[in-house]
Amino acid sequence: MFCESSKELAHFVSEARAFTNQGKVADYIPALGKANPHDLSIAIKYPDGRYVSAGDVKKKFTLQSISKVISLALVLSDHGPDYVFDKVGMEPTGDPFNSIAKLENMVPAKPLNPMINAGALVVTHMIEGKSVDARFQRLLAFIHDLTNDYTIDYCEQTAQSEYETADLNRALSYFLKQHGQIDEPVEHLIQLYTKQCAIEMNCLQLARIAMVFAQDGKDHETGKQIISKDIARICKTFMVTCGMYNASGEFAIKIGIPAKSGVSGGIMGAVPGKFGIGIFGPALDDKGNSIAGLKLLELLSKNYSLSMF
Amino acid sequence: MFCESSKELAHFVSEARAFTNQGKVADYIPALGKANPHDLSIAIKYPDGRYVSAGDVKKKFTLQSISKVISLALVLSDHGPDYVFDKVGMEPTGDPFNSIAKLENMVPAKPLNPMINAGALVVTHMIEGKSVDARFQRLLAFIHDLTNDYTIDYCEQTAQSEYETADLNRALSYFLKQHGQIDEPVEHLIQLYTKQCAIEMNCLQLARIAMVFAQDGKDHETGKQIISKDIARICKTFMVTCGMYNASGEFAIKIGIPAKSGVSGGIMGAVPGKFGIGIFGPALDDKGNSIAGLKLLELLSKNYSLSMF
Amino acid sequence: MFCESSKELAHFVSEARAFTNQGKVADYIPALGKANPHDLSIAIKYPDGRYVSAGDVKKKFTLQSISKVISLALVLSDHGPDYVFDKVGMEPTGDPFNSIAKLENMVPAKPLNPMINAGALVVTHMIEGKSVDARFQRLLAFIHDLTNDYTIDYCEQTAQSEYETADLNRALSYFLKQHGQIDEPVEHLIQLYTKQCAIEMNCLQLARIAMVFAQDGKDHETGKQIISKDIARICKTFMVTCGMYNASGEFAIKIGIPAKSGVSGGIMGAVPGKFGIGIFGPALDDKGNSIAGLKLLELLSKNYSLSMF
Amino acid sequence: MFCESSKELAHFVSEARAFTNQGKVADYIPALGKANPHDLSIAIKYPDGRYVSAGDVKKKFTLQSISKVISLALVLSDHGPDYVFDKVGMEPTGDPFNSIAKLENMVPAKPLNPMINAGALVVTHMIEGKSVDARFQRLLAFIHDLTNDYTIDYCEQTAQSEYETADLNRALSYFLKQHGQIDEPVEHLIQLYTKQCAIEMNCLQLARIAMVFAQDGKDHETGKQIISKDIARICKTFMVTCGMYNASGEFAIKIGIPAKSGVSGGIMGAVPGKFGIGIFGPALDDKGNSIAGLKLLELLSKNYSLSMF
Repeated sequence: MFCESSKELAHFVSEARAFTNQGKVADYIPALGKANPHDLSIAIKYPDGRYVSAGDVKKKFTLQSISKVISLALVLSDHGPDYVFDKVGMEPTGDPFNSIAKLENMVPAKPLNPMINAGALVVTHMIEGKSVDARFQRLLAFIHDLTNDYTIDYCEQTAQSEYETADLNRALSYFLKQHGQIDEPVEHLIQLYTKQCAIEMNCLQLARIAMVFAQDGKDHETGKQIISKDIARICKTFMVTCGMYNASGEFAIKIGIPAKSGVSGGIMGAVPGKFGIGIFGPALDDKGNSIAGLKLLELLSKNYSLSMF
Repeated sequence: MFCESSKELAHFVSEARAFTNQGKVADYIPALGKANPHDLSIAIKYPDGRYVSAGDVKKKFTLQSISKVISLALVLSDHGPDYVFDKVGMEPTGDPFNSIAKLENMVPAKPLNPMINAGALVVTHMIEGKSVDARFQRLLAFIHDLTNDYTIDYCEQTAQSEYETADLNRALSYFLKQHGQIDEPVEHLIQLYTKQCAIEMNCLQLARIAMVFAQDGKDHETGKQIISKDIARICKTFMVTCGMYNASGEFAIKIGIPAKSGVSGGIMGAVPGKFGIGIFGPALDDKGNSIAGLKLLELLSKNYSLSMF
Repeated sequence: MFCESSKELAHFVSEARAFTNQGKVADYIPALGKANPHDLSIAIKYPDGRYVSAGDVKKKFTLQSISKVISLALVLSDHGPDYVFDKVGMEPTGDPFNSIAKLENMVPAKPLNPMINAGALVVTHMIEGKSVDARFQRLLAFIHDLTNDYTIDYCEQTAQSEYETADLNRALSYFLKQHGQIDEPVEHLIQLYTKQCAIEMNCLQLARIAMVFAQDGKDHETGKQIISKDIARICKTFMVTCGMYNASGEFAIKIGIPAKSGVSGGIMGAVPGKFGIGIFGPALDDKGNSIAGLKLLELLSKNYSLSMF
Repeated sequence: MFCESSKELAHFVSEARAFTNQGKVADYIPALGKANPHDLSIAIKYPDGRYVSAGDVKKKFTLQSISKVISLALVLSDHGPDYVFDKVGMEPTGDPFNSIAKLENMVPAKPLNPMINAGALVVTHMIEGKSVDARFQRLLAFIHDLTNDYTIDYCEQTAQSEYETADLNRALSYFLKQHGQIDEPVEHLIQLYTKQCAIEMNCLQLARIAMVFAQDGKDHETGKQIISKDIARICKTFMVTCGMYNASGEFAIKIGIPAKSGVSGGIMGAVPGKFGIGIFGPALDDKGNSIAGLKLLELLSKNYSLSMF
């Protein structure tokens, strides 16, 4: 069986926290630069409702790239896989998450997968609604369902900070627009995307979303099938093949849990058929993943044989 | 439960065989060009010794890129993961399997993973022995263990044909040698590598190898632990993230079985904890995977819920 | 001696015009798509004031990429070569003129030369003035000096058409901004750049600008040194190494005249120490150069030994 | 007028020699690593037979990449431009001289120009003869004509040293062979190419070759037209657009003389219609050009207005 007590978990957190010294918080988005690099918290959510957790679990963080999995689940639900994968690919890439070079060499300019920025922008572009605000509310409502928590919102300050510094995402968007992959005003898309990235929660709430993915899209507490089994499966597959930036392959080998990280230091891990994990540890390694969060998952995976391979 | 009767399997083979018309056999290696594009055979091997099969299962084919997983398992057993992954990476790539461009942009020139040619050449370079022949015999002995069949050998004609046309692999090897990743004569490495690719078996034998990977490295029939659990896990992970050339991501999403294909039309599939699959269907799609073999696996995965995600 | 009579020139125009059938007018900028593909006109301007010309020389066209040489001359005059070449390189590139990939692989993200779009945007960014309009008027005044014609203006309709479809230039600009190479609002830069590209003249006027470059920056008719000798030399060098898009090398070999083309079908050629050439022929080859214009220059270069090599 | 006395030249050499401290000799070819970094010599050859020179002008060095221009002139003479440029392009490239990545992205895999290694290998491949030795003797005979010196030979030790370390050129050659651009055994080509690069002379002899190019292919002393005017022109054009590695553009702007450098520290400069320059200064800058040689040419170009632009 897996970790049953928060005390056990606290032990692993303590071991992993030592690694925060070797990482540093993201600073290219000013609002993220204020995080305390030594923070580390984790929550595990079981389908029966129990939580096991350790660290300062009430501390909030923004989702950043973790939101890419959630927006993907939403647009797959709305449009179906055929429509979505006509516009964004399914293949991992060895290039950086924010690379534009690969796009230029592809004909048509179709982003390789929805976990790199170019692909995520195309996905967010597909969120339906009459206005940026309506589309954002739609995404937020989906997250309220996933967390069963209707208080979750975005951090205005972070969204604003990202909006002001999102020139690389603007470059990607205009490139995609030039090639007909996006047909809305770029500023609208950037507004929506930066709000999406700035959605804020704590690791308990993130663990609950992860649990839904782990349980084939169903929330066993409420009995609701929030995402179809098929879509939950697709999302978990992307989390394995390209969820951890350019360390996805290594993560799959060493840890073997479908997971998605963000530059805020969050990691969402979905152990198929078992439970959901939410982690927050803002000190990042050079690939952009939470350095202590990775260590923590490695300890858990080794001790409880969590690798799906 | 899974497919119990060969009759059931024959039905799927018949449905998938229709797709052979849309593919074509590899012709860049002359010896492969002689295959019958309408061939399609499959064997499933259970840990208890049973086989279920369909098609002309005695037909032999060469392993080609499937051998990359086996040589990887061998060198991991000999040298350990730390040594091996110091020389070859763990990350999937969106570039073609035979690309040299990516190598040039990396410092050091470390192949991204062992499933692309550059990485596989580095892996084969690590097979120990006093001569090319001794090293090849070592690899063959390992395959004899995996198949429990001591008659398996390589096809001299195919090896020769590949040796004569291996200029791209020579280019990769000299590039790697220039950067210190290879320190043996390139012609030796190419001899060893082309023999490795030309190892010949039928789908029953391939299914038995797959079964060992599926069963965490253990052959339950003989009771032997042929590969460590850890190494079996690593191999299966690579099969998921980069086993099916540039369709690996799509394969993971649609089918979700750790698998490795070769340009001969072979596919080895290892369903974790369950059984091994060997397929032969030489008509290839434009990515280099057996077109009917993919269809067959898709039918099986859908009908028996085989996706691990 | 060179071509003295317009009659002689008309003969060459007639021969070259046959090639217009093999080209087509640019259509990615809607306003350019309306040109008559069979137009072909040429003017040669001697330092003593004489013109030799052929074709419908009063027909106006927009400068497009030809303007890159002129804006370069202006910013070099204002800031000096050291300042300018700190921000944009001097090296030719084998990549397309609108490529973004190369930028990504350079540290820092410094455009390779001022003739590709990324470099030209950085150059236009350096045009001084308190507002977009003031900066544009400054460039226009410079062109008035070069042509000794104070009626020249830009085509509002073309500028508008380009502004609306300039998403690739926006992508390049945001990429450059992200890397600190541009620090003004991108929309301002795009407004200025699209107006610059839409400056309109006929081949007589263009020939006069070319004559100034050919005569080391001096207008012998008015006696004014409009550009320093050093800057005229720098501009002619770029015209040789990268003035004709990805056919610059071939052009240098076959024709050997410092020249700059635009997608409107204009070509400005400066024969060092001799005379200036202005050509308009909107049917383009697949590299983006006037197909009949190239032919015409080839005929002239061969017949009058104009190659500088 | 230009520099008439060796004394005047010695003054410039002395000024330029100070820069040798900032460069270093090539060491990737062991035989080159033994050069004295402070060496600097120059010879200028006039068509009337006079030499002006300074430094230790009898010191020999190997041609290395300078030989690319000479082999190009030979194969152009043998096969004509159409044949040659069907196999190798005319365009400069921003990529390194030994890059393989660009080849991979081109269809067909045609090297961009004959001054990068891939292109030079294709050119050397075109040197005719029944054996490697016969082909090499043919090239040597051509050089004997150009220098009017029948004692010139290659340095066996350097050729051997380069042959043993030519793995990158082997990689390029096998890549080209794979794509049908080369159809001889790669080892033959590498033998011929390394001998070509190891042809040895002093700066007086190099200046005489340069003089022939400067004088439209004619040796005015002997009265022989060694190369056609057309081919001499083509060669000089390549020297301008891509003769100085990735500093060709900057060299054209700052110095403006058709020139070709080699990693031995040699530079051949051909001032059109005037004279030939041979320089030897083995300390290189980070682009692979003689650091003091560049400085020397810059001093001469500025003082005597040698830029052709």
